[in-house]
Formats: sequence, C-alpha cells, structure tokens
Amino acid sequence: MSSIYIAPLQAEFFAQFADRQIVVLTDDNTLLHCYPLLAPFLPPHRTLTIRAGELHKNIETCSIIWQQLTAYQLDRKALLLNLGGGVVGDMGGFCAATYKRGIDFIQLPTTLLAQVDASVGGKLGIDFQGFKNHIGLFQLPLAVWIDTNFLNTLPLQELRSGFAEVLKHCLIADSKKWNEIYEIATNFVANSQTYAPLGSATEIMLSSNISSRNVTAHATPPLLGQNYSPLEFFSQFSKELDWNNLVKHSIAIKEQITTADPTEKGLRKTLNFGHTIGHAIESYFLTTHSPLLHGEAVAWGMVAEALFSVQQGLLSEQDYQKIAHLVSLLYEKPKILPEVYQKIISLAQQDKKNSYQSIRSCALQGIGNCVYDKEMTEKVLENLLAKL
Amino acid sequence: MSSIYIAPLQAEFFAQFADRQIVVLTDDNTLLHCYPLLAPFLPPHRTLTIRAGELHKNIETCSIIWQQLTAYQLDRKALLLNLGGGVVGDMGGFCAATYKRGIDFIQLPTTLLAQVDASVGGKLGIDFQGFKNHIGLFQLPLAVWIDTNFLNTLPLQELRSGFAEVLKHCLIADSKKWNEIYEIATNFVANSQTYAPLGSATEIMLSSNISSRNVTAHATPPLLGQNYSPLEFFSQFSKELDWNNLVKHSIAIKEQITTADPTEKGLRKTLNFGHTIGHAIESYFLTTHSPLLHGEAVAWGMVAEALFSVQQGLLSEQDYQKIAHLVSLLYEKPKILPEVYQKIISLAQQDKKNSYQSIRSCALQGIGNCVYDKEMTEKVLENLLAKL
Repeated sequence: MSSIYIAPLQAEFFAQFADRQIVVLTDDNTLLHCYPLLAPFLPPHRTLTIRAGELHKNIETCSIIWQQLTAYQLDRKALLLNLGGGVVGDMGGFCAATYKRGIDFIQLPTTLLAQVDASVGGKLGIDFQGFKNHIGLFQLPLAVWIDTNFLNTLPLQELRSGFAEVLKHCLIADSKKWNEIYEIATNFVANSQTYAPLGSATEIMLSSNISSRNVTAHATPPLLGQNYSPLEFFSQFSKELDWNNLVKHSIAIKEQITTADPTEKGLRKTLNFGHTIGHAIESYFLTTHSPLLHGEAVAWGMVAEALFSVQQGLLSEQDYQKIAHLVSLLYEKPKILPEVYQKIISLAQQDKKNSYQSIRSCALQGIGNCVYDKEMTEKVLENLLAKL
Repeated sequence: MSSIYIAPLQAEFFAQFADRQIVVLTDDNTLLHCYPLLAPFLPPHRTLTIRAGELHKNIETCSIIWQQLTAYQLDRKALLLNLGGGVVGDMGGFCAATYKRGIDFIQLPTTLLAQVDASVGGKLGIDFQGFKNHIGLFQLPLAVWIDTNFLNTLPLQELRSGFAEVLKHCLIADSKKWNEIYEIATNFVANSQTYAPLGSATEIMLSSNISSRNVTAHATPPLLGQNYSPLEFFSQFSKELDWNNLVKHSIAIKEQITTADPTEKGLRKTLNFGHTIGHAIESYFLTTHSPLLHGEAVAWGMVAEALFSVQQGLLSEQDYQKIAHLVSLLYEKPKILPEVYQKIISLAQQDKKNSYQSIRSCALQGIGNCVYDKEMTEKVLENLLAKL
C-alpha cells in the first residue's frame, strides 16, 4: 500500500528525495497551470513534457518518455513525479514501472478525476488500437500527493467529469453520502428560481486563466425552468460542495476496495459500475467529432446500469429514478442513434472485464451496494441503449 | 514464487488449462524445431510466431504481439506459453504481463541459456535504443517447465553460450561444483591426444536438423596440440557432462538467490558476475558484423572481472589463472582493439546496475563467493580490456 497524502504541497516531503535524480512529467496544460504551483516545493529536478490529451496516451508517447529518461541517464534510484490528470498518471506510471524494470514514481493528480480515481489503486497503462488502457500493469506508486488547490486550475467541465466518479463511489458504497448529495441538488432545484441565469460560458469558469474552448460543447437546452443548462447548474451546485471532504470520502472508499482486492479478482470490479456501458459510449464518441469526457460518459453509463439493476430485480424503480434525475440535472444526455448501437455493443464486448465474448456488468443491489459479473446479453444492452 | 518443473513434458500438466484460451508464442526456429515436440501435449490452442533473434526484441515486436493477442480476443484468463530462448521468454513474458494489465504465462525455455538463467527469477523485458533489457519489469510466470530434451535441438554454439551461465553459477556460489567441472575439462585436455580431431563443423552438431550456419564463426586456431578449436573441444567435453544434473544445479542456485532478493536490491546482483564487462562487450559486438553470443561475451567478462577481483585483493592469482584457462579452452577470445575501449566503457556506464555514472561490478571473494557494488573506474576497466 502506498501512502496517500491529502494536503497542500509541502517542501519537507519532497526534500527527502533530494539525493535522487528527479524528473517532473507534465503535459502542455499542467506545465502551464500546475507546474508553477509545484516547482517552489521541489529540490533540483528536470521536466519532461508531453502533449495533452487521451489521443497521445499510446505506445509512441511511451517511447518518447523512455527515450528522454534515457537521455537524462536516469539510474534505478531516480524518481518520476507525474503531474497531471489520468493520462499523465497512467502513462507516466507505466513508463516509470518499466524503465530499467522499474523506478519509483509519485502521483501528483491535478484533476478531480485523477484525484478520486486514477491516482489510487495502482492501475497504470495506455490505450492501444482504440482500446482504452489495453496495455498496462498494476503497480503502486511510492506515494500519491493530492492537493485540492489544483482543482482551481480546472475547466468546469473537467471538474464535472471527475464528479461522476464521486457519485459512483457513493452509489456503490455509501447510500448516506449519496442522499446528502441528492438533497443538496434537489434543494437547489427547488430554490433555483431565486438564482439568475448565468450570462456567458466564460463567467462560469472556476479559474479565469483556463481556456474556455470546451465549456459549451454538448450543451442541451436548459432543464430547470429554462434557466440552466446542466453545466450551468453544476457551476452553481458545485459551490455548495465541500471538495476537500468529498475527495477524502471518495479516496477512502476506493482505497479500501483496492487494498482488499488489488488485482481485480472480485470486489474491485464494483469500481467498474457505470463503466461497462460508459466506457463503450466514451470509446464510440472518441471516434466522432464530439468526444465526451470520461465522467460524462460514465454518468450516463451509471443510469443505464442502474436500469439494468432494476431489470435484474436488484434495485427499486424509485431509486433508479433518483439516479436518472440527478444525472440529468448535471450531465447533458449523449445522443446515441439506433444505427450505432451495434458499434457500442462491439466495444463493450472488448471490455477487459469480460470472459470470452460475454459482457459482464456491475449492478446495484440497492443504493450503496454493488454486485459484479452479471451477464448482460447483446439484446439487453441494445434495449438499455434505446431507453437512455 | 512460481513453480519450476524440470522433467519431460507431460500432457496432464497442460490439461489443467484446457478451459482457457491458450496461445503458444514461438519464433521462426522454435516453431520448426520445438513446437512439434510440444504440440502433442497441449489442449486446443493457437500459435503466434515472431522473427528469431535479439534484433527483434524491441517495442515494435511487442506491438505485433499485443495486436495479435487482441485479434485473438484473448480475455484476462488467457494463457501464453513462451516457447523459445531468452528473447521469446523475456519479450513474451513482458507482453503477457502488460496485456490487459496482465495475463498468465508459462515459460518453456528451449535453450540452455534460457533454462538456467532467463526463465528463472521473473526478469522480463526488451531492448531499447541499443540498451539491453532497458524496458521491462519483474513478474513471475505461472510456471516454468524445463525439458532438457529441447537442448538436443540446439546448435552447439548455443549450448556452449548457455554453459557460461552454468560456470557463473558455480563461480559465485559453489566452488566444489566448479572444481568438478574444471577437473573434467583438464583431464580431458590431458587425454586429448587420444581423440582424433573432428573433420567438419557439421559433424559436431548435436542434432542434424539444425542449420550449421553459425558453428564456425569466430573459430580461432586450435589450442590443444593443434587438434581442437574451442568449439570442437566443447563438442567433446560436453558429452562428458550430465546435463540434467547441471541444469538442476544451476537453477537451484539461481532460484535461491532470486527468491531471497527478487527485485535486485542486493544479493541478486551477484548474478551479474561477468556481466558488467560481458554485457558491454556483447553490446559492442552487436554493432559489428561479427556479433557474439551472450555466453561467449559473458565468459570473457568473467575472466576480466576475475582479474578485477585479484586487483581488489579478493581472489588469488592461482584461482584467476584457473578461470582464465578453462574459459580459453572453451571460448574463442574476442578481438578487442584499443580504439574501441572507449565505446565499451560508455556501454558499461549505461548499465542498469550503476548509480549515476559510476560503474559498479561484482567481484569474486574466492571461488564460490561473490560480492557486488564494487566501484570500477574507467581507467581500471580500460586496463582490464587491455589485458584480455
């Protein structure tokens, strides 16, 4: 088990590695927005920057990283600091774990998604031929340092994407927390007439120094009395949340599950709730001109798998409606046309969690409790997609 | 710790995996010479063949392997059988350990080198930009099955290459066995006048169905009363040896050391005896038109590092002479010209075992006992190369 720190960055922590060769891996974005926050706390080090985005999470980028680590003549005692979201953490960790058969690395997740999900549990890897995280391994970092101040550097849409994993952790393991969040959101809806609609996409950025290029993508007509789009709703709603507390809560759940089952033989599979369908949807949209963020796909994947849970007689219709309601408040529903169902089904069949060709999915046995390895036939999946 | 079996192949063993997707990885050579010996013992399976040779032990071949495993739609319960020498085992193991974050694999080493060395201890990996095993990881196979009948398929030069590791295991851990082998060889020299010199390279093949293309490479003038080249000497000498016993002996030593120190923090470094210099020599000759086999380079690396041990005051001059004598009986001395010393030194500096730029080497503290992390300056290494 590696150490997970949830606190503002501390120079004392990094000082203990001053006798090692240190390299900070960033992408274009985190070099600009996050590295300046980290650098003052570090002993002498070098940087290595890769291009941002899931598109570059591949073996070619790994070769570039390995090449640069070699050029820096890193020895086996060297230390790689992965500063970024899931792509930097997963790929940087994979490269560190395989460079000279493994050097130490520390995860410094900067996105909410990476903080509550990717940085915990030791899953490392890259995409391969269109399959997400197809090549990789399990290896725990030397440490994970989570500073929620990095969240202020995020575009709102990124924050919302990570929030889907926070919801997931509640749905599979903590009904009380789920209800708290649901109450905050629905109270907020009840009072929403008292809020003025927001004027522009730029104003709803958490931090003004981030490009707003993606903020309005996928926006559907406002849902709340014609006042708010889901992203606008989230921008207000998110201010009601205690992020430090939420991040701690999510990590505690993920940490507990991954420690009990590090290599995903059983219990850990529950963390895939929403992902069998969500991943397939995400993969499909990656091939289109309007890709979805991971959490946007997983949120609707959770709705579909909650409906699957109802069909399996495990979840009440009422609980399903609550899940669907909250997700539709927060996330634009992706438009999935009948002619692409088969593509999405094929993608779901390639999921790593399956045995041979049969699709295995999680299901909720009531909110706060999750079961796994439920067989989902093609017909059933097609029907779920149609009902989305 | 994975199970190591040293026995003829058994259908019962493989039958237990009949409910899994099985893929046999071979190279061009083992597909032809070894796969026919294995196939009758296997449940239904598929094959995947890569090009033979260290040249292809790279990330491009890994991509081909991953691609084919994907095309076969292997799930996480699939099993990869690596049938071949070190290249197939190291690279196949690496690909299995990273496909979908790791599927099971079984090592079926067919060369002596792989049987007594590569297949034991969980080191996996590939070469990268001219550096041997630069990218890889530690991961134990599900099992290692060693059938010494495969040795009959080997060119004699390959068998001799592996024998260098057998000698190494004796030198670092068992002086009694070392003396036994030394006695067999020197008695054989004493009696060598009674043997007729061999007529042709083809006749000294262990098995007639293997190409003899490399057998006469590097042959130097016969050493024993003008009767035998080292390879001819080895061809006769090797018939005096009990291979099953030798393989068991070597594996027991390697297994004991790697179990005590799986990730090479200390003791395991002694297995690198002969390799600091041997690896560098091997890497240098890989760039020439007359590459050496691994064991041919390591044998002379052991001579150089034994001399280093004398200089360190750890080994007697007499023991060094015995080591140099046996190696010169068995292996042609590589011709290293003064103008390439610097290249070899640079290659040694890039060794994974070093800290920063300083070269670390093993040394013998008497035969049968090895110490590690001895600093070797450039000057000292240059001097050792000059004395070879």
